[in-house]
Amino acid sequence: MATEPSTAETPEAYDQLLSKVKRINNVEAASMLLSWDQQVMMPEGGTPARSQQLSTLSALQHELLTEEEVGDLLDELEGETLSPEREAVVREVRRDYERAVRVPTDLVERISQKTSEALPIWEQAKAENDWSQFAPHVEELVDLKRQYAEHVDPDADPYEVLFADYEPCLSLERAEEILTEIRETLVPMIDEIRDSETPITTDAFSGQFDTEVQEEVAREALTMLGYPWERGRLDTSSHPFSTGTQFDARVTTRFKAEDPIDALTATIHEFGHATYNLGLPDDAYATPLGEHRGLSVHESQSRLWENHVGRSQAFWERFLPTMAEYFPTIEEMTPREAYESVNQVYEDNPIRVEADELTYHLHIVLRFEIERALIAGELSVEDVPEVWNDKMEEYLGFRPETDAEGCLQDIHWSHGSFGYFPTYSLGSAMAAQLFQAAEADLGDVDALTREGEFDTLREWLRENVHRHGQRYETNALVREATGEDFSADAFTDYVTEKYGALYDLERV
Amino acid sequence: MATEPSTAETPEAYDQLLSKVKRINNVEAASMLLSWDQQVMMPEGGTPARSQQLSTLSALQHELLTEEEVGDLLDELEGETLSPEREAVVREVRRDYERAVRVPTDLVERISQKTSEALPIWEQAKAENDWSQFAPHVEELVDLKRQYAEHVDPDADPYEVLFADYEPCLSLERAEEILTEIRETLVPMIDEIRDSETPITTDAFSGQFDTEVQEEVAREALTMLGYPWERGRLDTSSHPFSTGTQFDARVTTRFKAEDPIDALTATIHEFGHATYNLGLPDDAYATPLGEHRGLSVHESQSRLWENHVGRSQAFWERFLPTMAEYFPTIEEMTPREAYESVNQVYEDNPIRVEADELTYHLHIVLRFEIERALIAGELSVEDVPEVWNDKMEEYLGFRPETDAEGCLQDIHWSHGSFGYFPTYSLGSAMAAQLFQAAEADLGDVDALTREGEFDTLREWLRENVHRHGQRYETNALVREATGEDFSADAFTDYVTEKYGALYDLERV
Repeated sequence: MATEPSTAETPEAYDQLLSKVKRINNVEAASMLLSWDQQVMMPEGGTPARSQQLSTLSALQHELLTEEEVGDLLDELEGETLSPEREAVVREVRRDYERAVRVPTDLVERISQKTSEALPIWEQAKAENDWSQFAPHVEELVDLKRQYAEHVDPDADPYEVLFADYEPCLSLERAEEILTEIRETLVPMIDEIRDSETPITTDAFSGQFDTEVQEEVAREALTMLGYPWERGRLDTSSHPFSTGTQFDARVTTRFKAEDPIDALTATIHEFGHATYNLGLPDDAYATPLGEHRGLSVHESQSRLWENHVGRSQAFWERFLPTMAEYFPTIEEMTPREAYESVNQVYEDNPIRVEADELTYHLHIVLRFEIERALIAGELSVEDVPEVWNDKMEEYLGFRPETDAEGCLQDIHWSHGSFGYFPTYSLGSAMAAQLFQAAEADLGDVDALTREGEFDTLREWLRENVHRHGQRYETNALVREATGEDFSADAFTDYVTEKYGALYDLERV
Repeated sequence: MATEPSTAETPEAYDQLLSKVKRINNVEAASMLLSWDQQVMMPEGGTPARSQQLSTLSALQHELLTEEEVGDLLDELEGETLSPEREAVVREVRRDYERAVRVPTDLVERISQKTSEALPIWEQAKAENDWSQFAPHVEELVDLKRQYAEHVDPDADPYEVLFADYEPCLSLERAEEILTEIRETLVPMIDEIRDSETPITTDAFSGQFDTEVQEEVAREALTMLGYPWERGRLDTSSHPFSTGTQFDARVTTRFKAEDPIDALTATIHEFGHATYNLGLPDDAYATPLGEHRGLSVHESQSRLWENHVGRSQAFWERFLPTMAEYFPTIEEMTPREAYESVNQVYEDNPIRVEADELTYHLHIVLRFEIERALIAGELSVEDVPEVWNDKMEEYLGFRPETDAEGCLQDIHWSHGSFGYFPTYSLGSAMAAQLFQAAEADLGDVDALTREGEFDTLREWLRENVHRHGQRYETNALVREATGEDFSADAFTDYVTEKYGALYDLERV
């Protein structure tokens, strides 16, 4: 699946295009590292310079992509007979090129500078629980992103344009259908769970857990799952994330003494992202065949490891004894108690990243609706806290006590990432579909998990998803891996089965 | 000294030039961060991607600088009447432009990629004490750098061309005069010291010092000196260095249990570098008025803090009690013993960065001679270990036992930095001249040190050196700060006085 070596039959234009694309992607990789550093290492005073550096790199990346010669090379190559891999490269560059040429460089530069400035302001506003500090910056970002969407396609729904920056190969309509199916499955299920009288363990991990020891546990988990430390590292940041390339795929998490599961599941989630990056072919680095397929697919990888592996009873049978070595207070816990506790459906958790697998998606629906209204100009930024809390009450039955636990909790808007959130739910659905297919191919994956054997699953994912890079568009990739079109069916089956058993629900 | 705000009288060409220069310098700042990360944070597997990223950024920086429009803007501005600050900006950009336009981008890219690849190979060769692993890469780098010099000026001594990359405003001839004066002062002085029968304390810091505690001590020292943690950070790397901007000036050091002074003096040295960067004007960031004057001046700042402050008796009167709180084994030590111990002239130290203030410069002379011969094609790379050891014997009276302690000890050649070493000795000479001038202005600097009052000296340096950026060329900057042309006289006076007293020498 990697880029083929140049041969006598390689059109010269293809090599020229590829060399331009490599430059663009290397500039992007540099930006990603600068952004990782800003979130993990940079002293706070560094922001003004970092903002300029990032906006310069954004502008350069944009200028390199929109060079007239790129358009000419694409035109020339679209007239040639190419191998399917090369056709895919041309298709991907064409898509990026078409969007980029419509957007003026100075707007790209302004968005980058603004997001870089907004990051520390969001951090402070969150720490001080003060939406009003962050609001003017959100307003500016909404405005800039609306301008951006207008440039890309003045006739389209601007939110659809923004969504395509994160998931370029699925229509917003198809995405909404999947989100709707998820919601329609979950809402009655959550109601039923709230009415359920089946007692499940909810407090197995109560108490205080030293955060330095938690970090050692997170490292143990990563090592057990097969994280290659020679191509990665674990750090802490206020918002867990993963970034990098097939050569250097880093993860971050953060530790809270009162909740050791939060850091652990976040670490496993980010491991899934990193594993995807690491599975992209080395020799296609910085080309479309060595880049991820978009954020729905990326999120499917993190969800698969977080939920289908990390929240399985088999995982706890394997990992609990290790964890108990670090935390003797949990020595008496059974894997079943751990399993129930990490899968409990919360009654009043306001924080998305701490949510269970079910209510999680209602957090997403809420954000999706608020973002669409903001971008459509139907909701003013100052009203966000109230609308947020109203929707929380409507979907989840309670109001957050503070904005820090409400509309200030996520980093995404400080990045200007409007349209990103839906990919989280799409990723969950795709994770379920991929896991089902992996089980069909590999047999009892839980049995492997119980043995601490994670290579087989990782290799299956590499073979069926990672190594293709952008060879296929999203739905085609899912079809290639699973034999079916992408849908929410496997997810519906999975949650119905799992939570039906946990809470002894009537199966639908 | 900062860039003036744009006014109606600002020639439009000036603003255009400045905006181009800012882009170039922001790309360079991004490269510096990538390089910091490579040395401090990056997992080893990241090299292939990092090499491509760095070479892409180098190439872009080069292309941006050599755009025809830059030449046109310079031509236009050279016909205008400008303020002295703006004239300085035009002068500096012209100098960079003239060198850059003569060098093809692909050579720049190859040099960058090669240096990035060579770094881990040097690290491994040093760890395995095997010059033959590193030699082919040095050979390639020498060849690439020779090509580079040939492009810049085919008629010049190629070493002189390379030297100007680090010290653009002093001729190699002037530099050599200063190096010669230093050598001619030091060689007889070191001989006399070796014959001296005056006993001085040499082993005050013998024993084992926990490296984690050493790190706390290094942080204490930085805090005492006034390092602004909100604009910096301390990390460890195999070779101590400092990098960054006025907003984010980081330092690294490394710790050895058997030598707590090594890490401490390295930390203070890098503090000096960082303080220079931090003293550049914020509002001139990414323009010549907000960039350092070159590596001789940079090194003068590190040397001034390392030697004139950190190796003074006053410093030890202040700092020893703090250090003894961390290391109770040195509770009984007197400041005089510490002072003597950290200033002892070594009989057989093979390592440059661990050398005393006097023999240090013979380490530099050795490198200077070997580099010149390599670049001139008069010495083959495979013969470097033998020539190195012969010269050590000639200048310092002993042979290193291994290449790791000999020609593999320094990182510089893996960076392709031929021509860099002389700036270390030039910096020492300049440090002495600046410190003499500071004392003339401020009175008894040692008295301030004894009180832990370092702001006054830092402010003097900011006022007289840092804030000017590249407003003046090297000699003019020294003259501006000290009233005299740059020379080795103050250095000669300083070492004669200090070491005369320490070893009870006959003063010349």
